[in-house]
Parts: sequence; structure tokens; C-alpha cells
Amino acid sequence: MIKITFLPSNKVVQTSAGITVLQAAILAGVQIDSSCGGKGICGKCKVQVLEDGKSLPSLAEERNLSASELEAGWVLACQRSLTQDTKVNLQDRLDVYDRKTAFVGLVPTSLVPSIQKYPVTLTGPSVADQTPDWERLLAALPVAGIGFSRSVAASLPKILRQGKFQVTAVVEGDRLLAVEPSDTSGRCYGLAIDIGTTTVVAYLMDLNNGTVVTSGAVTNPQQVFGADVISRITHASQGPENLLQLQEKVMNGLNGIITRLSQESGVSPEEIYQTVVVGNTTMTHLFLGIDPTFLAPAPFIPVFRQTVKVEVRELGLSILGTGNVVVLPNVAGYVGADTVGVMLAAKADRLPGVSLIIDIGTNGEIILTGKGRILTCSTAAGPAFEGAEIKYGMRAAEGAIEGVSIDEDVKLTVIAGGKPRGLCGSGLIDAIAEMLKVGVIGSSGRYAYKSDQLAKLPPLVRERLRQTERASEFVLVWGKDSASGEDIVLSQKDIRELQLAKGAIMAGIMVLLQEMGSSPQEIDRILLAGAFGNYIKKESALKIGLLPSLPLVRITTIGNAAGDGAKMALLSTEERARAEFLALRAEHIELSTKKDFQVEFIKALAFGIVV
Amino acid sequence: MIKITFLPSNKVVQTSAGITVLQAAILAGVQIDSSCGGKGICGKCKVQVLEDGKSLPSLAEERNLSASELEAGWVLACQRSLTQDTKVNLQDRLDVYDRKTAFVGLVPTSLVPSIQKYPVTLTGPSVADQTPDWERLLAALPVAGIGFSRSVAASLPKILRQGKFQVTAVVEGDRLLAVEPSDTSGRCYGLAIDIGTTTVVAYLMDLNNGTVVTSGAVTNPQQVFGADVISRITHASQGPENLLQLQEKVMNGLNGIITRLSQESGVSPEEIYQTVVVGNTTMTHLFLGIDPTFLAPAPFIPVFRQTVKVEVRELGLSILGTGNVVVLPNVAGYVGADTVGVMLAAKADRLPGVSLIIDIGTNGEIILTGKGRILTCSTAAGPAFEGAEIKYGMRAAEGAIEGVSIDEDVKLTVIAGGKPRGLCGSGLIDAIAEMLKVGVIGSSGRYAYKSDQLAKLPPLVRERLRQTERASEFVLVWGKDSASGEDIVLSQKDIRELQLAKGAIMAGIMVLLQEMGSSPQEIDRILLAGAFGNYIKKESALKIGLLPSLPLVRITTIGNAAGDGAKMALLSTEERARAEFLALRAEHIELSTKKDFQVEFIKALAFGIVV
Repeated sequence: MIKITFLPSNKVVQTSAGITVLQAAILAGVQIDSSCGGKGICGKCKVQVLEDGKSLPSLAEERNLSASELEAGWVLACQRSLTQDTKVNLQDRLDVYDRKTAFVGLVPTSLVPSIQKYPVTLTGPSVADQTPDWERLLAALPVAGIGFSRSVAASLPKILRQGKFQVTAVVEGDRLLAVEPSDTSGRCYGLAIDIGTTTVVAYLMDLNNGTVVTSGAVTNPQQVFGADVISRITHASQGPENLLQLQEKVMNGLNGIITRLSQESGVSPEEIYQTVVVGNTTMTHLFLGIDPTFLAPAPFIPVFRQTVKVEVRELGLSILGTGNVVVLPNVAGYVGADTVGVMLAAKADRLPGVSLIIDIGTNGEIILTGKGRILTCSTAAGPAFEGAEIKYGMRAAEGAIEGVSIDEDVKLTVIAGGKPRGLCGSGLIDAIAEMLKVGVIGSSGRYAYKSDQLAKLPPLVRERLRQTERASEFVLVWGKDSASGEDIVLSQKDIRELQLAKGAIMAGIMVLLQEMGSSPQEIDRILLAGAFGNYIKKESALKIGLLPSLPLVRITTIGNAAGDGAKMALLSTEERARAEFLALRAEHIELSTKKDFQVEFIKALAFGIVV
Repeated sequence: MIKITFLPSNKVVQTSAGITVLQAAILAGVQIDSSCGGKGICGKCKVQVLEDGKSLPSLAEERNLSASELEAGWVLACQRSLTQDTKVNLQDRLDVYDRKTAFVGLVPTSLVPSIQKYPVTLTGPSVADQTPDWERLLAALPVAGIGFSRSVAASLPKILRQGKFQVTAVVEGDRLLAVEPSDTSGRCYGLAIDIGTTTVVAYLMDLNNGTVVTSGAVTNPQQVFGADVISRITHASQGPENLLQLQEKVMNGLNGIITRLSQESGVSPEEIYQTVVVGNTTMTHLFLGIDPTFLAPAPFIPVFRQTVKVEVRELGLSILGTGNVVVLPNVAGYVGADTVGVMLAAKADRLPGVSLIIDIGTNGEIILTGKGRILTCSTAAGPAFEGAEIKYGMRAAEGAIEGVSIDEDVKLTVIAGGKPRGLCGSGLIDAIAEMLKVGVIGSSGRYAYKSDQLAKLPPLVRERLRQTERASEFVLVWGKDSASGEDIVLSQKDIRELQLAKGAIMAGIMVLLQEMGSSPQEIDRILLAGAFGNYIKKESALKIGLLPSLPLVRITTIGNAAGDGAKMALLSTEERARAEFLALRAEHIELSTKKDFQVEFIKALAFGIVV
């Protein structure tokens, strides 16, 4: 095993010798630009290798690097294999490109926000120079073609004179968003928003340096109209006032967060000049007040899928009214802007080999990249993993069982310690994997009931498996140890729910693999996005057959990638353009039209390792 | 004298032989396109001469016209002199250009509105074709590059399905304004608005054929904050809520007219897709809710002068919310979009020779064209002509004395007959011209007071001239004959007000002539715009020295040219572009910076013919 350290993040990965720098970076969750897919052609994956027993440069490196770069240890990450402990420097590499860079999580992103601030000092008017205020200001700006804005012009005369003709113009592209007295160029903020069906998260970002100033989350207030997207679509379809109601709910939730973030940070809402939004297709329709009715019945038709830019005041979001709300593009009715955000954060268009990216939230979206294609599909698989439809299911919050091991008896890990209140998704998967291991359930998902099956169980475990009126259930926590005093049990129905959910995901994966002409064994890496992906025990996921069986080292969690994608698109117009490109390039596979899906689904219901 | 008849308007002009067709057309108030200024170069002034003793074509005509056109009597209007009674056909000429034309008054305007309606039938969606609604619609439209509209998309799904995927798209440039079920291309409307300081007028236009469907007017409701622009600016400058108040006043007035026009015509407000607005610079600032504070003090700085396009719903006008309000450009703080409308309707950029255009409303704007230049200035001269600051002054409404003649006694013409209530501008000018004629006042403006002066007056007239405590006054109407029972008099102060007003206008004209290096004798034509221009008796205006002395035939009234300009810009994107061009090309002469103005003003105070 060798140890590879990536600078400046100090992210470390332990792996076997012979791996390329690029592969090591992927394992470490460190993103390195690469547009040729690891062929040594594009030269974009230049990095500096420190403390390495310098080997001879490859042909590709000699082509792409100068003599002085080679001398200083620069290599192409895709070409250079590592054979000993090494430090790899990414920071200076970024300086090579001579542009500002920010890190979103561990992902480097160019820092080229669409918002620019220009402090300018104007010459005042006179009878000899009666130039109107608007033209006077525009003539002083280093940007051409700015269109007239009624609302900025409305109060311009007094702002100009208040600042004694020294002002700062806030510009986005060809739009003047605001004029502020004096030089305010040091303060420039934006908001990245991830609207989940269950949770709405907002990140207040400093656009001058790309950092998160503060962030906040609330439960999506649309919950009162139902936990899932279908019930919300149904509500919205019953009339324009219902649609407006749903839009207002999420807007009020967001405005609540904005007020809080503003108070915490001392950043005025008027200094937040832009927001980038991701969410699933239903959430983005509702956020924009666009009728989602025909997303529900087949053929699942959205109204739009491109990037949408809307003036803030049209939506009633409480940031600068002339700013833009940018909603990242959707791919299809059930593959939304959140999935595009995941693709962005995972740099799905630049991953070498075959990669599987899974985002399990309230819905489960699957992305398969490789062979020059990006395939996507959606499965209605999420809720079980968020605790919905599971008797003692709950979200990953205080009191949730997040880890389970079963040997002589059941051992639990509970979030924030204390007495358990229920199970979250990772606990559920753990519990099933462990019950499979000791024989409490079989691969069919049925609880042990034959006497020989029961005889094999450790006595304390056997005691927990009991018969109810309809079926068996397993007592994970006895009442005396639970927060409520009630037994926490897993029913046969709970097991069935999880089987349906994991079956749908695995069937989706198999259909995408078939579409690409690949087998599970060809998958080079699995990236797990979302809160669920962060907490899941990989071994357990493999054991129950939620994921294709791969060496654990090839499975990486990438956090709230949808939100990270929103942040990247906020910080960088390049990333925003790439989101558009990803949405167009992604091929959507409608599972309901695939006969194979039903076949794969039936096969995938059984628990066990998938090979 | 020969008689020239223009078809299809049947407008007739009697003039001396030898005049060119183009000159005759100008005298008749008939506009003929001409971009080379009458040099026979551009060939745009092609017309068909009927019933003429066909003369040989000129060199320029041979160059610009085909043999068959020459055979059929086509000539270049600027080249052909007429020596006998002639009919000139403009209608077929327009067909030659093979484009739709409308007439605004007598002015031909190309009919190329920016609003287009496209009826389309779409193929419905299926699982095999999950194209989003928005993209499906756009793919069927013959226009590329249409941007996403949240508000149109919001209700699109139901409209598409309600019309069984047969719909009509309303498009302006790259914007989709509305989607209507079924084929509605036969109905397409717009609004032309002229916001005067005193009166607001709106014309509902059929954009399919260029006709006025109906029109309406109200007194500008901002009147409660003062009759003149300065008092309104003062009110607006006292805080944003005051500015909003003024904006709401005019918006409410307009919305009242719109409701009425809609009821009268059966045209729904949602079928009015655009509005073009003219008004003076203060009125356009207030209409747009833009702070006009610094228009009042020197150096009179407006906030903007270019064409402004704003979405209707941003202003709260009650027509289609996604439509555009287009406000024509201003030239300067006191030469506004209304003057640009006048220039447009007068085709100020195409008039041959030297032309003087005067628009007397609440302010008096003067335009002088010639020698390749367009000069403009503004004089605060209007109110007196609208009856303000004149004791018995009133607007040209029922009961206003509009004509006065004095011989042995005073004879009056009253609008709509009946007993007189007061004097309007034309009556005032008539009265002064007649009082000058018989010697009631001298050229200094002072009432006759010496005994020899008084002795020369006819007895009945002399009886009307009486001494009050401070000065003399002249009884135009004895109480027994007036509507109120009171005497209607002209005081010495009234005379002085008119002197100041006419002096300011004449001084403005002289300063512009000096700037151009021309003399009053070089003026080829005077065009009088505005209601005032329509009613004024030309002889009287010359007699008191309001206008430079020219043969009457060179003085033409052109009606509400500002409103006509708004109509033209609504009907034709070409005219709208020309408005922009005119505003840029117009040179604004700030009279307050001209020493000559004071000198000319003093000179122009005296009554009498200006030569």
C-alpha cells in the first residue's frame, strides 16, 4: 500500500502501487480537470508531483509539458503511475492557468461569477454637458451594451448625487442590477439553493472568494400538501390558486432562511445579487409557479427543461429585486436540475472509464457515464431510505439508529447517542445486512420460520424474532431501552418496502448498463450523492444488493452534490454553461417503456450480493 | 393657379404652375418618401401622374424608373414640375414596394408592427416523444431564438391541451408574449398613448390593418399636483412615495380609458399586446416612475433619453401583462418623446429645404430642419395659449371663443355655438390681431389711452375699452351675452402674458435660425402641430408676430402630430427605428445658455409682422 496526499486539501488516500495520479485523485474525491478521458491528449490534468522517485516522462507528457515544467516535477495525472508515498500539488497547478479558483467541497471551480462590481467616479453635469444620468453612468463603465433598467434608473439621480458621483455599479452581463453610493466592491454575495422534496437548503456565498458565508435549511413547507411529489402535483393541478399556494409555501420557507442568514452574517438581502437553484423537476416547476399537472400521468411531460433565468422580483424572493434567479436545467420529468447539479459536482463529463453516480433522496436518480455517453434514469425508490413507509423509519436526525451489528445479540449506533427513537436509511440497510448474515431473514426477504432456521440463531437474537397476528417481526430495541418505551421493530412489510426500493434502484442500474452495453464488473467507480450516501455503510449496501458488487475502494461518497452543483454554477459562468451542456448531453432512459426493467426488477428483489 | 389632387386621400392643393409634385405634396400635407432630400438620387419618391400633359422624363427619372414605369406615367415627385391640373396617385406606388402600408392621418406608414401572431398545430406528446411543452411549441414556430418566459410557461400545459394542441402564439421579436387556444390571428391590437401635461389621449389600433378602432382622452389626473411640469417635479422630488403617487395617477387615468375603449370595441385588454407612449420628458419620467427631480433646476438633467422598453406588468397598465410598453426617446430635458413623435409624423428628416415645425401644448417646442441638420429647442411658452394665466382663458372646448373679428363692433365665433364662457388660444390670438388692426392696442401691447388714439376707435369698440383701478381692460363680451352673466374681458396683464409667450416662441425660432445660418425668409414651410395649431387663424398669428411672415400657403397644420408619431411607431418597427435616429440626430439648443436668446426675446415682445 502506498499513501498519496493531495495538496492543498491534504486529502489522503491509501491504495496499491501502480495507480495513476488521476485514479488516486478520484479515489480521494479530489477532482482534476481532464477533458480527453485519461488518454493523455488534452494536457489539462497537469499536476505537480512532490517527493516522488522521479520516473521518465511519457511521450504524452513530453508533448504536453515544457522542459522547465518537467524539471519542476509536473506530470499528466492520467499518465503517471505512482509506486511510493507521494504528495501531489494541485494548488500551484491552478495558478498555472492564471485564473481565480474556488473550492466547492474538494472540487476546484473557476471563480468567474456572472455578477461584477465596478466602482466608478463620474464628472458631474453642467449646462455645457447635459448628458442624462443613465448615459453618464454607462459611459464610465467598462462594459458595453448594457440595457436600460427602469427600476435602477428610478432612483439613480439621488444615488449619484448622494455619492457625489462616486458609485459602484453592480452588473450582470448586459444588465445593470443596482447602483450603490461609494465603493462597495468588497461586498458581493449570492445564494445557492437546493430545493428538495423534503428539505430546502440555502448557502450564502461570498462571490469575491467563493466561500460559504453561512447556510441554513428548513423542512420544505409544501409538506402540508403531501410528502411526495405526486400529491403536490395533484394539489397544484386543481387550479391556479393551488399552484400559487405551493409556490408561496416554498418562497416563504426560503425567505425565512434568507432573513436568518442575513442576520447571522450581517449581509443585507440587497447585497445578495443572484441565486442559483437546483431541485427535482416538480420542485423547479412549483418554485417557478409553472403548472406541473402533466408531469404526473404518462407520458410525464414537463413544461421546460432548459436553464431558466427569471428576475427575482417576479418570484418574490427577498433578495435584490433586480437580480436573477437561475434555475439549472432539467433532463426530463423525473431527472431534474438537482441531478444536473450532481453531474456538475461529480464532473460527470470528465470521469474516465465507466462511472455510476447515484443520488438517493426522496426519489432515486441514477447516472451512468462511459463510452462517451451519459445515461440517466429515475426510480421512485427514495422514500423508504428516508424512513417513509417504514413503521419505525425516521430521517437521519438525533435518536436515529444509523448503525446495526448482530452477533450474539443486536448492537446499535444511535445518532447523537441517547435512547433510540427509530431507524434511518443507513440503519435500515445495516439491520437487513446483519439479519441476512445471521439468518434472521433469507435472501427472499422472508423472516426465518422453519425450526431448523430458527435453531441456528443465537438465543438472544431468536428471542427478538416474534410472530404477530399477520406475520413475523424483529425487535431491534426492547421497550425498556427505547426513547418512547415501546419496542422498536422491523415488520415483514418494512422488509418488503426496502426490497421494492432497492430492487428498483438495482433494476435501473442494470437497464442503464444494458443500454450502454456494459456489465456491472466494468464499473470503475460508484459515487454516492446525498445525505443518504454519506451515512450508508458500503459493505451493507453491497451485502443486500443495493449496489453492484465492487471493491469498496471504488465506492466514494460525494456529499450533497446537488447543492455543490448549485454553488459551482453560482461561482462560475463556465460551470453554468457546463450544466447546460450536461443536461443536453444526458440521455434520459424512461424505465416505464423498457420491458427489461420489469425483468430486472423481479430479479433484483432478492437480497444478496450482485455480481 | 393649378389644382393638384392626391389619391387615394383625395387631398387637393391649389398652387401656381411650375411646382414639383413633391412640393405640392408637402403643401397638401401628403407625405411622400424621399431620403435624398429632393436631389433625384434615391428614387424613393416614385409616384404615378395621371391626366398630365406628359413631359419628357428627366435624367434622374430615366435612371430610377423602368421603361414600362415611364410609359405608365411614373415620375420622381422631386423632379417633375406640374403645369396644369393633375391627379397624382400614391396608392399604387405603395404597391410597387410590395409591402403593407397604413395611413396615419394622411401620412403613409409601413405596416410592420413588432407584434406577430402565428397559428400553429402541434403533434401531441407520447412516451416516445417526451419533449417538454415549451420546446414543443417553439419547434413549431417560424421564429428562432425565442427566450423562455416564466409567465407564459406557467399556464401553457392547459392552454395547449384545451386547444387540442392548436394554438396561436403572440410573438414580439424574441419574446413569446402569450399563447391563445385555437386560431386568433385575425385579432391583434395595440395602443398609442400621448401623455400631455394637460390631456392624456389613447388610440386603440388594429395592428392587422393599421386603423384606429376607437380612441379616448381624459384630463391628466396629475393636475391635482399642479398644472405645469415644474409643480409636478417639485412634488415628485419630495420622496419616493410622491413619485409613486404621480405615476399611479397617470396609470389610473390610462386604465380608465383602456376599460372604456375595451367596452366600446369588444377588444379584451388581454388582446392589446403593446403600447407606444409619447409625452414630454417630465411626463415620460413620471409615467415610468423615474425620479425627475433634476429636470427642474439648471442644468436640467434627465435620467434617460433613449427609447425605453418596459414590461407592461412592471408598470401596472391594464393590458396584456407580458406585453411591452415602448416609450419613444427624448432629446433633452424639455424636448421630449412628444416632440420626437412630431418629428416622426412630420417626417422631419425627409423634408426638402428649410422647415420650421412648432408644437404648442403646455410647453412650446420648436424644430428647425434644413442644411442637413435638425435643431430643437423648448420655450416655456405654452400655457397662455391653453388659457392658463389668462383671466378668462380656457381650453378649446364648448363655449370657448375661437374666432374674433373687430370692425364697427366685436364679432365672435364660439365653439359649438351658444353663449361664450371664455377664450381659447386661437380666440386670444385673433382678438389681439384685431385689436391691433383697429388700434385698441399698439405694437407695444399697451391699450390705447391717449385721446387721439381713442378718438380713432369706432364708438361701439371704444365703449368696450375701460379703465379699472390698475389698468385698462377690453370687454369682449358684455355680461348679458355671456354664459355666466359676467363681462368677459381681456386685461392688460392678459396681453402681457401673451406677449411673453409669443416673444419666447419667436425668440426661440430666431435663435435656431441663427444657429443654422438662415433667415426667416429662407423658411420653405411652417408646420403647426397640436390642437392649438389646428385652430389658430394663420393670418392672425402672422399679424401679431407669433410666426415669421411667410405666404399663408407655406403654413400647414398637421394635427396631433405627437399622437400620430406614437401611432406610426406602434404600426411600424421601421418608424420606431427612425424615431431613435431622429432623437439622436436632433441637436438640442439650450436657450438659457444663449446670450442671443435674451436679445431676441426683448425684440420679439412687440406685436407686429416679423420680416
